[in-house]
Amino acid sequence: MKIYFAGSIRGGREDRKLYQDLILYLRNFGEVLTEHVGDGELFEKEQELSDEQIYRKDRTWLEQCDVVVAEVTTPSLGVGYEIGLAESLGKKILCLFRTGAGKKLSAMISGNPRLQLKSYKNRDLAKVIIHDFLGVYKL
Amino acid sequence: MKIYFAGSIRGGREDRKLYQDLILYLRNFGEVLTEHVGDGELFEKEQELSDEQIYRKDRTWLEQCDVVVAEVTTPSLGVGYEIGLAESLGKKILCLFRTGAGKKLSAMISGNPRLQLKSYKNRDLAKVIIHDFLGVYKL
Repeated sequence: MKIYFAGSIRGGREDRKLYQDLILYLRNFGEVLTEHVGDGELFEKEQELSDEQIYRKDRTWLEQCDVVVAEVTTPSLGVGYEIGLAESLGKKILCLFRTGAGKKLSAMISGNPRLQLKSYKNRDLAKVIIHDFLGVYKL
Repeated sequence: MKIYFAGSIRGGREDRKLYQDLILYLRNFGEVLTEHVGDGELFEKEQELSDEQIYRKDRTWLEQCDVVVAEVTTPSLGVGYEIGLAESLGKKILCLFRTGAGKKLSAMISGNPRLQLKSYKNRDLAKVIIHDFLGVYKL
């Protein structure tokens, strides 16, 4: 199974370590195409690529993936765009929203019946949600 | 011409007055379906609607519009989602990014050849860009 993990990059990196932990967990279920989202040195590495190269690479991965897992707590244009594009490509999408972080989730995500949206309080509960989701879609 | 204006709502309202000003300007070119994005009492008014009602209303407007004008300076899941969905619907999309605000724009926007992306320094320059863009697509 090919998994596209989406998390905020230029919108804000405060949850970077959480993304890294979720990506490590996702690797139990298949190949995570976007492992770089959890990388602490991502900005340095991205400087080798133009924005158009980054866009084309991520778009290709979105087209190739079987499922999308998006962490949506930190507002991010990129994550929102990826969810909209993935939905139009007919992908199965799980959105994870952390409660208690003082963030408001967009109604375009929370009111969207085409997405699986789950709230969670801590990493362990996020992993239980991922396990349940990927168990259904395991390929 | 039907115009869908996209700006951050739950991602952060610090540019709300800018959105209001741009919406007033856009009304010179056609009907702005999403005038509420500039409204100072939006949160109070939205409480009358469920998130799914907001989602369905905005999605219908996106399907009906001729062009999308998105202010992308404040990171926002909703704006990103709307751009991804509008792109898949084949809409013409103008993204406006304000320089000097200390924000980094997502590569999914800045590296995307399917969007018209323009940077601007102040409101007057944003209006010149809108004028040039809507002059081409005027229906």
